[in-house]
Amino acid sequence: MKNDGEPALITLEHGSGGALSSELVEKHIYPRFSNPAYPELTDATRFDISGELCMTTDSYTVDPIRFPGSDIGRLAIFGTCNDLAVAGARPKYLSVGLILEEGFPLADLDAVLDSMRRAAGEAQVSVVTGDTKVVPKGKGGGIYINTAGIGEHVAGSKLAPGAIRPGDSIIVSGPVGAHGIAVMAAREGLSVGSDIQSDCAFLFPACHALMALGAELRFMRDATRGGVAAVVGEAASAAGVGVELTEESFPIDGAVRTVAEILGLYPLEIANEGVFIAVVSEAETERALEILHGTREAAQAALVGTVTSEHPGTVVLETEIGGRRILDLPRGLLLPRIC
Amino acid sequence: MKNDGEPALITLEHGSGGALSSELVEKHIYPRFSNPAYPELTDATRFDISGELCMTTDSYTVDPIRFPGSDIGRLAIFGTCNDLAVAGARPKYLSVGLILEEGFPLADLDAVLDSMRRAAGEAQVSVVTGDTKVVPKGKGGGIYINTAGIGEHVAGSKLAPGAIRPGDSIIVSGPVGAHGIAVMAAREGLSVGSDIQSDCAFLFPACHALMALGAELRFMRDATRGGVAAVVGEAASAAGVGVELTEESFPIDGAVRTVAEILGLYPLEIANEGVFIAVVSEAETERALEILHGTREAAQAALVGTVTSEHPGTVVLETEIGGRRILDLPRGLLLPRIC
Repeated sequence: MKNDGEPALITLEHGSGGALSSELVEKHIYPRFSNPAYPELTDATRFDISGELCMTTDSYTVDPIRFPGSDIGRLAIFGTCNDLAVAGARPKYLSVGLILEEGFPLADLDAVLDSMRRAAGEAQVSVVTGDTKVVPKGKGGGIYINTAGIGEHVAGSKLAPGAIRPGDSIIVSGPVGAHGIAVMAAREGLSVGSDIQSDCAFLFPACHALMALGAELRFMRDATRGGVAAVVGEAASAAGVGVELTEESFPIDGAVRTVAEILGLYPLEIANEGVFIAVVSEAETERALEILHGTREAAQAALVGTVTSEHPGTVVLETEIGGRRILDLPRGLLLPRIC
Repeated sequence: MKNDGEPALITLEHGSGGALSSELVEKHIYPRFSNPAYPELTDATRFDISGELCMTTDSYTVDPIRFPGSDIGRLAIFGTCNDLAVAGARPKYLSVGLILEEGFPLADLDAVLDSMRRAAGEAQVSVVTGDTKVVPKGKGGGIYINTAGIGEHVAGSKLAPGAIRPGDSIIVSGPVGAHGIAVMAAREGLSVGSDIQSDCAFLFPACHALMALGAELRFMRDATRGGVAAVVGEAASAAGVGVELTEESFPIDGAVRTVAEILGLYPLEIANEGVFIAVVSEAETERALEILHGTREAAQAALVGTVTSEHPGTVVLETEIGGRRILDLPRGLLLPRIC
């Protein structure tokens, strides 16, 4: 027990809907997320908005909850904002659903909530509603977070795989693989790789800058689980086009490359949390790179491939040693709780 | 392995973001939720809507996932819709976040998704976006579901605790306690109570009918975790008014009453999933009851108390044996995973 009589660990009673549930939200949650515009974090919160909206959701189960460069709270805010950003929307409103495991330290919850509050401030989004459940010990992972997000669609075009055309360019916004390696190194307590920082970042500014291309910007997607391989593979499949990627053109941090090799992981299949793929017209490729290089989040953006009418649905990789191979959707990857 | 080579149980690879993740959503999820208006269940889905919106979220962790009268899928659709309905909004769009535990049977997932699809159809809401995570065995509860919801605010008034006035009437929409008892009986394998059905229901039609009262309808809230005691207690506290409730005026099913007594539970503290509290002006109380009695979901609605300027923040209960006691927010309730 802490001095004020409040338990130091989450108990089942915190999830009962009774007095302790009320205390939890009033002492720990409301003070962090209420603001003049949304003073009451009620069960259902009202706001005025109009036009074309986007809605998205993601759950976050990352283990450990803190890792170099980020934590589950920051990830839960930025990750959901990024899903909106790559869809062409400005993130506006978030809901937060917490699933806490009995025994989870309240101090850790406070730290996660603080991180969420800071990240929401950086992203200029309002957390407007939430829910907290407590599950018995052994039925959870400490803390799982779901965030759903609403954004205003601000892109001038549809940004769907269907807009992708042969001849288009594939751009990656930054070095790949750091997030997954940072989480793995932290989880396994590896000394090698312990200085690698997650790439976790808020991608709306870079995505928004790129929307200046109008319809010449075809498609964007953040390269989270399954990495670049999954995102490009799914886009090629949905668009019915082929893609040619050049392995050596991908920016990869040297330490990430080394640790990935040690762990037997392939950087193009590793989850990122601050990297996106953009498909742009051939004509606007240079301009796209210039725009991205002028942003903080995509200063190392690189052209990594082209779209072709050949081998529809298939991604072919020109490897660093000069060979060509099919880059399939990742199979057998067992990196659970990476995001 | 099933005949088509697909595993019969959820594996970590289903959550990897790779090929098996794609198969999971394409075979099991998209076919159930895609519709002509929202053919692509993308990471972020666009829709046109304007005016005053409401947003809400809830996670569902109920154990067992099937119980008499409902299941976790139906609960996850209706529960979130109900949070919108009592806030005065017509539910429109839902997101679905699944947290599956390694080893969860795919057949059970299919059954839950079927139930969600049916419930969404009944509620006339569209599931427009989703996410699936898989956590290792021993780190989950089979299936946890988060749904977030967007609704159009259609009530003519604000429907906040601040609108509650001394003299107002407290109405309960139906018999209390059935959901919690049904889940407990199913979980513990009790023979007594095994025929009690959860009250799980879609409350928008009844809430919408009541909105005909305009500003004479002050406030509504569904009586979920913590039951009527928590909802009325929190409303009294937020409104700065006192409430007098009459115990014998609450409709309670005889079997629910019996099993609650056996289990040492108090019906006014038990979670419901198809019961709401409405606060209406004294003048419109009869009309409110007439309106509710004309609906399927609230045919047994009853006047159960009044608002007073005395003892602000406190709910006083006139008990069936004629005494008076304070009805506090529930404490020490240990009914985990009831919703």
